[in-house]
Amino acid sequence: MSLKLDDVVKLITPVDVGVAAAARRRLDSLTKPLGSLGMLEETAVKYATARGDVFAQVRRPAILTFAGDHGVAKKGISAYPPEVTPQMVANFASGGAAINVLSRHAGAELSVIDIGVAAPCEFPGVIQRKVAPGTADFTEGPAMTEEQARKAIEVGIEVADSHISQGSTLLGTGDMGIGNTTPSSAIIALLTGKGPEVVTGRGTGIDDGQLRHKVGVVQRILEVNRPDARDGLDVLAKVGGFEIGGIAGLILGAAARRKPVLVDGFISTAGALIAAALCPAAKGYMVASHLSVEPGHLAMLDTLGKRALLDMNMRLGEGTGSALAMCVVDAAARVLSDVATFAEAAVSGADK
Amino acid sequence: MSLKLDDVVKLITPVDVGVAAAARRRLDSLTKPLGSLGMLEETAVKYATARGDVFAQVRRPAILTFAGDHGVAKKGISAYPPEVTPQMVANFASGGAAINVLSRHAGAELSVIDIGVAAPCEFPGVIQRKVAPGTADFTEGPAMTEEQARKAIEVGIEVADSHISQGSTLLGTGDMGIGNTTPSSAIIALLTGKGPEVVTGRGTGIDDGQLRHKVGVVQRILEVNRPDARDGLDVLAKVGGFEIGGIAGLILGAAARRKPVLVDGFISTAGALIAAALCPAAKGYMVASHLSVEPGHLAMLDTLGKRALLDMNMRLGEGTGSALAMCVVDAAARVLSDVATFAEAAVSGADK
Repeated sequence: MSLKLDDVVKLITPVDVGVAAAARRRLDSLTKPLGSLGMLEETAVKYATARGDVFAQVRRPAILTFAGDHGVAKKGISAYPPEVTPQMVANFASGGAAINVLSRHAGAELSVIDIGVAAPCEFPGVIQRKVAPGTADFTEGPAMTEEQARKAIEVGIEVADSHISQGSTLLGTGDMGIGNTTPSSAIIALLTGKGPEVVTGRGTGIDDGQLRHKVGVVQRILEVNRPDARDGLDVLAKVGGFEIGGIAGLILGAAARRKPVLVDGFISTAGALIAAALCPAAKGYMVASHLSVEPGHLAMLDTLGKRALLDMNMRLGEGTGSALAMCVVDAAARVLSDVATFAEAAVSGADK
Repeated sequence: MSLKLDDVVKLITPVDVGVAAAARRRLDSLTKPLGSLGMLEETAVKYATARGDVFAQVRRPAILTFAGDHGVAKKGISAYPPEVTPQMVANFASGGAAINVLSRHAGAELSVIDIGVAAPCEFPGVIQRKVAPGTADFTEGPAMTEEQARKAIEVGIEVADSHISQGSTLLGTGDMGIGNTTPSSAIIALLTGKGPEVVTGRGTGIDDGQLRHKVGVVQRILEVNRPDARDGLDVLAKVGGFEIGGIAGLILGAAARRKPVLVDGFISTAGALIAAALCPAAKGYMVASHLSVEPGHLAMLDTLGKRALLDMNMRLGEGTGSALAMCVVDAAARVLSDVATFAEAAVSGADK
């Protein structure tokens, strides 16, 4: 398939509601009270519907973690200094980070993509796709050019395509980038219509004074750049980040090949909003993995019409929510295909 | 070890707060923002503390599903007829139920114990420990004798002991018994002080009229039997069920050997309340797996001081919440032991 953004968007079709109905009929014939597995049943329907097959199973799940830097990180909006981005990429490469541990636990392959880290990141296994060495400081102008925004998305599409060609039927998004809750807050404020003071949070852990400063930075980004909320590419270019573009592309690339994507937390959902702005039908392929502690996350999920599978006060990113939720999606697909029906097991139904 | 209830209670010691502090110190040294894995970190602390070892891992996890019948089931309090209990035990034995699918998914061994099914349940693999063929109808007198209550608990202790001797370091509770939300509602009403109309729910799916009838039944059970809320054995004997006793015993038996237990949903938490009434220190070994749709469940968990790991609108029982939550506990233990520290990975800490 072509890896050009415009072509990929044309390939994405709405999910098949006929498959959803067939999956629900099967769930209602299984030996359990109607609807008694709650969100596990809904997840099974969602997975089957995206795949277009009631009996589809999870094979070769993969977590894709995109790393990028942010010009704004010099402006005191994070608890951590910018050099932590390449240090954490090195930690991913040597297998020591939380996302390594949780990917191994989930039986998922982890791929780390340098899509825009400021420093060189040529560690073993890290996929080299640097669009630029960090974004420009968007308090003074656009984060990147429209061409760079398009390129970041196409990197994500390419990564999705490559994993799906190797047999992956479930992808999970992840991010690394000191400062990246700031562009994410700007994207939500813009795409949900909520004020920066409502959707801006503490990220990796800043204090009250730093939070007030960060809210001001988000306001300034939007005033200086005035992105067009109806144009996903313009939003990404003016107030986004390279890893956010990569995540948006990953979702679009997976949707084009009818594979569901677990959307991690706050940063990844900003990428999902960009993907939905570029192609609303892509929403049918997104599964919200967890509800982040970041105050804007719930508004993002509401905008996408999603409820998160897990609500565990997490706010780490890297793809940790995706990795943990993979277990739930896998369990859901197995319930739909493997539980015996009332007829098969000769169990009496509910009294009428 | 002895399997007598009174001896086992004496063996249970409060969990070691020194281990909790050591686990927290280690979590704070790992390459992630402080506290950023939320409940996953709390779960890691809980597991390590119960085991008495910061680096303890989950080995040979097991789900133990206790099945029993209820004299009250003839009184129209369930959507399903009582013959479904042995039919579902047969379904467990042939591997077709949701708990079979979810136990396999979790890599957990499933054991099914007939602790009081009315009909014979001699299916392959089902452990035969019938205390009696179903409880008496407790709208007219006690559900069982105090001797039977003690015996049910000791069956649970024996099952825990046997699995732990074979190497299990994490157990999960499960139940099967048509009608068993009714005794569970009576137990909560008694042990949380909330009215039957607040804590009685729709179980497997009854309508408004049946729900009003069920609330009346719960009120009648408590008036007729007047159990002593301070005496766990008296509560179990008068308004409980054999599977609830088995679950209470499983928790006590595991606590005596310092192994944590995932408590499934509504019925299992009634068992956990009985265990806590018999031995408050046992609470330190309980992990709440999921929040049930049943309205009384939150009050039960509050009484035990627990927050559930999952909140997915589930209400199936069988141990399905325990099986799904095993993945989270396993992930938590791996994070605590396997993630690299800031020093090991040469990553910069937060700015001061």
